Amino acid sequence: MSIAVTILGASSAKPTADRHPSAQAVNVNEQYYLMDAGEGVQQRLVRAGINPLKLRAVFISHLHGDHVYGLLPLLSTLGLYGKRTPLPIYAPRPFGEILEAHMRFFDTALPYEPQWHEVDTTAHRIVFENDTLEVWSLPLRHRVPTAGYLFREKEPALNVSKYAIERYGLTVAQIVAAKRGEDLTAADGETIPNSLVTYRPYRPVAYAYCSDTNYSARLARMVEGVDLLYHEATYAAAERRTARERGHSTTADAATVALKAGAGRLLIGHFSTRYKDLESLVQESRAIFPATDIAREGETFTVTEQRHDKI
Amino acid sequence: MSIAVTILGASSAKPTADRHPSAQAVNVNEQYYLMDAGEGVQQRLVRAGINPLKLRAVFISHLHGDHVYGLLPLLSTLGLYGKRTPLPIYAPRPFGEILEAHMRFFDTALPYEPQWHEVDTTAHRIVFENDTLEVWSLPLRHRVPTAGYLFREKEPALNVSKYAIERYGLTVAQIVAAKRGEDLTAADGETIPNSLVTYRPYRPVAYAYCSDTNYSARLARMVEGVDLLYHEATYAAAERRTARERGHSTTADAATVALKAGAGRLLIGHFSTRYKDLESLVQESRAIFPATDIAREGETFTVTEQRHDKI
Repeated sequence: MSIAVTILGASSAKPTADRHPSAQAVNVNEQYYLMDAGEGVQQRLVRAGINPLKLRAVFISHLHGDHVYGLLPLLSTLGLYGKRTPLPIYAPRPFGEILEAHMRFFDTALPYEPQWHEVDTTAHRIVFENDTLEVWSLPLRHRVPTAGYLFREKEPALNVSKYAIERYGLTVAQIVAAKRGEDLTAADGETIPNSLVTYRPYRPVAYAYCSDTNYSARLARMVEGVDLLYHEATYAAAERRTARERGHSTTADAATVALKAGAGRLLIGHFSTRYKDLESLVQESRAIFPATDIAREGETFTVTEQRHDKI
Repeated sequence: MSIAVTILGASSAKPTADRHPSAQAVNVNEQYYLMDAGEGVQQRLVRAGINPLKLRAVFISHLHGDHVYGLLPLLSTLGLYGKRTPLPIYAPRPFGEILEAHMRFFDTALPYEPQWHEVDTTAHRIVFENDTLEVWSLPLRHRVPTAGYLFREKEPALNVSKYAIERYGLTVAQIVAAKRGEDLTAADGETIPNSLVTYRPYRPVAYAYCSDTNYSARLARMVEGVDLLYHEATYAAAERRTARERGHSTTADAATVALKAGAGRLLIGHFSTRYKDLESLVQESRAIFPATDIAREGETFTVTEQRHDKI
């Protein structure tokens, strides 16, 4: 199991000739999820070799144009592509009204249903889940209601070790019971604790997307232990005051969250267009949290399971 | 005087990795006008070296997403750029409602006024004019109310030829009268017809933008004598039936309009994404109207005044 994050855009609101607004494709076991949808996202997907029909769900952090202007064109194009299955869209209010007005004004009849699910941006809770994945909302501190999203693989089912099967001469019934987490009873009547015979085949991985937000110590606790953290860094460390006023973070803020959370790796992005030299920005973060990289458009960052080959 | 048309996008609705939806920047004497605004138009402008703040007005042909999705992001960015003067937007109903809903939903306060002017898509009339330019609406035949736009330079003021001034020994008062179009009286009492002493310093040029539309003989009459004609050619000549059904034109339709109008030059675009080989499409048009070119993204097509250097 692994999570691969492809950066489709990581610029802030003012567009430039070669940087695109926020959007990411998150691939969890070949299921694609879209994080935010800045203008041009459908073309960015195609250029990244990701068929938009493969998107399983869309997660929108907040309703500022640079995070959502690309969504309605994408929905329209999915109709032209002949999509038939519903597309869940997780977004704060009033996304439903925006969607409804759009369909009416543009006289659009889609052959599938865009299903809005309201995200409560004040709550840290599961907003989406399937057999192997949970997605949690992360309350962020921005000028309008905003949520980040935490992708967390579920704990895998217990495996029973081959060594234990031989060592204790386990029956099929005992193996099934062990997989359920039960302790076993040996032929001599002794209890065999479950932990002696079972193991998790891998450690699940987690990814958090946090844009746009002020520095938040609470956020650091919510994303504790995350393997990969994307945290906006709109401003250089010296612009702390501007960042605070505008509901954004500095390079130092992002690195501090990563450090406090014990993250494996940090990606920074959403840079103000005032910065031409991104290298100096990443150096500022690295001074606090060395495992920092720039979320460069077109690049894919992968976190892979820690496989436990216990035998 | 001249009109220069920069193709920002000329693809049809389905986006591809390297073709963009409809948008053109029309430069008339260093005044820029935007024709349609497909997704990504603001980035296309920047890439073409055109400062979006230089736009004097926007003309929208119809409210299909591939012609308008880029406008609201552009309006938003103009606010970030600090625009203060109103921006006139010529578009059919219900653009005003779309604009109003957008401002409300996205909680947008712009430092300038986007001024909607409703275009009656059934009328062929002047919708915009200034000292040197008229823009006429062109009723088109599409699935929703649609207008093309005809940019026509105004007739320049009369000049009095140096030859006539000497030949007839004209006084300043006579020269002023001649510039007003009056006939003159010579010293011997003979009438000097105005046409003998005056000339137009140049022949004004005209450009017509026609997308999206079925073939229309009426359109050909409305754009008669145009120097440069952009006419959509969504389909190859063999797909005439599909074109008719979907409110579009073929390569042959576009060329026939250019031929009947006596146009100077034809640009075709809005090609269906089914066509990879655009060269065969332009050959189809050239068989009917030889002076045809593909409206290639990033290219600029210029029509220049015919200067009359009468002395």
